[in-house]
Amino acid sequence: MYRVTRLDIEDARILIAGAAEKAREIGVPMCIAITDESGQLIAFERMDGGKVTSTTIAIDKAFTAAGAKRATHDYGAVSQPGKPAYGINSAIGGRLMVVGGGLPVIVDGEVVGGIGISSGTPDQDQACAQAGIDAFLSAQ
Amino acid sequence: MYRVTRLDIEDARILIAGAAEKAREIGVPMCIAITDESGQLIAFERMDGGKVTSTTIAIDKAFTAAGAKRATHDYGAVSQPGKPAYGINSAIGGRLMVVGGGLPVIVDGEVVGGIGISSGTPDQDQACAQAGIDAFLSAQ
Amino acid sequence: MYRVTRLDIEDARILIAGAAEKAREIGVPMCIAITDESGQLIAFERMDGGKVTSTTIAIDKAFTAAGAKRATHDYGAVSQPGKPAYGINSAIGGRLMVVGGGLPVIVDGEVVGGIGISSGTPDQDQACAQAGIDAFLSAQ
Amino acid sequence: MYRVTRLDIEDARILIAGAAEKAREIGVPMCIAITDESGQLIAFERMDGGKVTSTTIAIDKAFTAAGAKRATHDYGAVSQPGKPAYGINSAIGGRLMVVGGGLPVIVDGEVVGGIGISSGTPDQDQACAQAGIDAFLSAQ
Repeated sequence: MYRVTRLDIEDARILIAGAAEKAREIGVPMCIAITDESGQLIAFERMDGGKVTSTTIAIDKAFTAAGAKRATHDYGAVSQPGKPAYGINSAIGGRLMVVGGGLPVIVDGEVVGGIGISSGTPDQDQACAQAGIDAFLSAQ
Repeated sequence: MYRVTRLDIEDARILIAGAAEKAREIGVPMCIAITDESGQLIAFERMDGGKVTSTTIAIDKAFTAAGAKRATHDYGAVSQPGKPAYGINSAIGGRLMVVGGGLPVIVDGEVVGGIGISSGTPDQDQACAQAGIDAFLSAQ
Repeated sequence: MYRVTRLDIEDARILIAGAAEKAREIGVPMCIAITDESGQLIAFERMDGGKVTSTTIAIDKAFTAAGAKRATHDYGAVSQPGKPAYGINSAIGGRLMVVGGGLPVIVDGEVVGGIGISSGTPDQDQACAQAGIDAFLSAQ
Repeated sequence: MYRVTRLDIEDARILIAGAAEKAREIGVPMCIAITDESGQLIAFERMDGGKVTSTTIAIDKAFTAAGAKRATHDYGAVSQPGKPAYGINSAIGGRLMVVGGGLPVIVDGEVVGGIGISSGTPDQDQACAQAGIDAFLSAQ
């Protein structure tokens, strides 16, 4: 048997709150998704004004970051033309996100979930994802 | 009528065992998929710690390699921007994999199945796929 | 944080072996799928002669049983015309299986995974799924 | 290794010709699909006036009949409300067809492919599928 530690719903709320605070600070209403370590959705919030196209994108960024145990922007780097993972962006029916804004949530070296943000630029999305993680780790 | 030779379930287990041994050697837990020559799944294993996003990717690499009778990294080369197969990665609902790690299994010049590996770098995935094939061919 | 216990790859092999033994006993080659408690595939085998249409069905039965924490035949009962869950069979892109042959794997009252079988009648499929679970529980 | 006999393209043409002759006889232009024993498409013809919605339906009937090794109308019988396979019609993304008109092609007791017909009533579709098989078996 295999033992796994993952985010619970309270953790997910803290991650969302941290990301939303950063989103308000930079003035970009965001879609914010939190998954468990298996990539399954735990919580989602679309801030008033968040893009409806970003709902799926945020969920898939969190799914990718948790499931693949790496930041989506890292996939962006290795999937550029000529790079080894070129073309990976259309895998899993297009769910494999290579655009920044998805980060694994890591505790004691283990991936316990993922956060995915969408509606801003990839840099803005990633900054909000990091803010969510910072808030979560501070609360531990 | 058309006569076809394909992998059976015992062959599939040998391929998986060979790939898994290499995966343990390099320290990367892998998702390993074996298809018959029609691209239909015969067997699959996700080693403890293998990425959940890699389940579909491994299956689709094996599907692509068997069905298209070529290594997925060969598709990577010809699907770069400006190359003839540019954009092929999103074909078949994204199942056409152009990232390394999928190899056709060939016996007596005939494709009899496919092996697809995912969770490491494409080079690591491909090395494990080759190790599976080597184990299978040694057992013939 | 949330702590979860799930099947590992060794457990999955025991479940498959137990189901396959029963399948040979009744003379029906089966597709056998094992998922973790999140419904993510751990292992799959299509016995020689198993139906290719049953690959996805077996995987989705295991997904449904683990994810919904109930046997797929229980969904069959409550999704009949006029019953409360009527129409649920086409949910999740058709992945929600209401045909017998999918069972949750339960240890100490907790769902730790799912087993899904397909290629025979639903009763045969279910008997093989139960045989897999019996083999697994005996080995604990 | 596993040895399989399947329809070739000449066989597929004979099956289509036999089905189309029956379709002309009853005055219903049909979509006619032939798959190999793995459910993969070998040939397809939409007679002038055949329904475009029937393209996918014919292909999926042939896929189901070959892959599951049984007539689609048999699935219709066992998937009625209250029957064991109720709800199976939405499996495999809806590709599992339970409407008559799909028949496995059997030679020497082995399924070597499938034929699927759509555009008429299920009875008409099935009659044309049978006519295709009769033409094929007569030509052996």
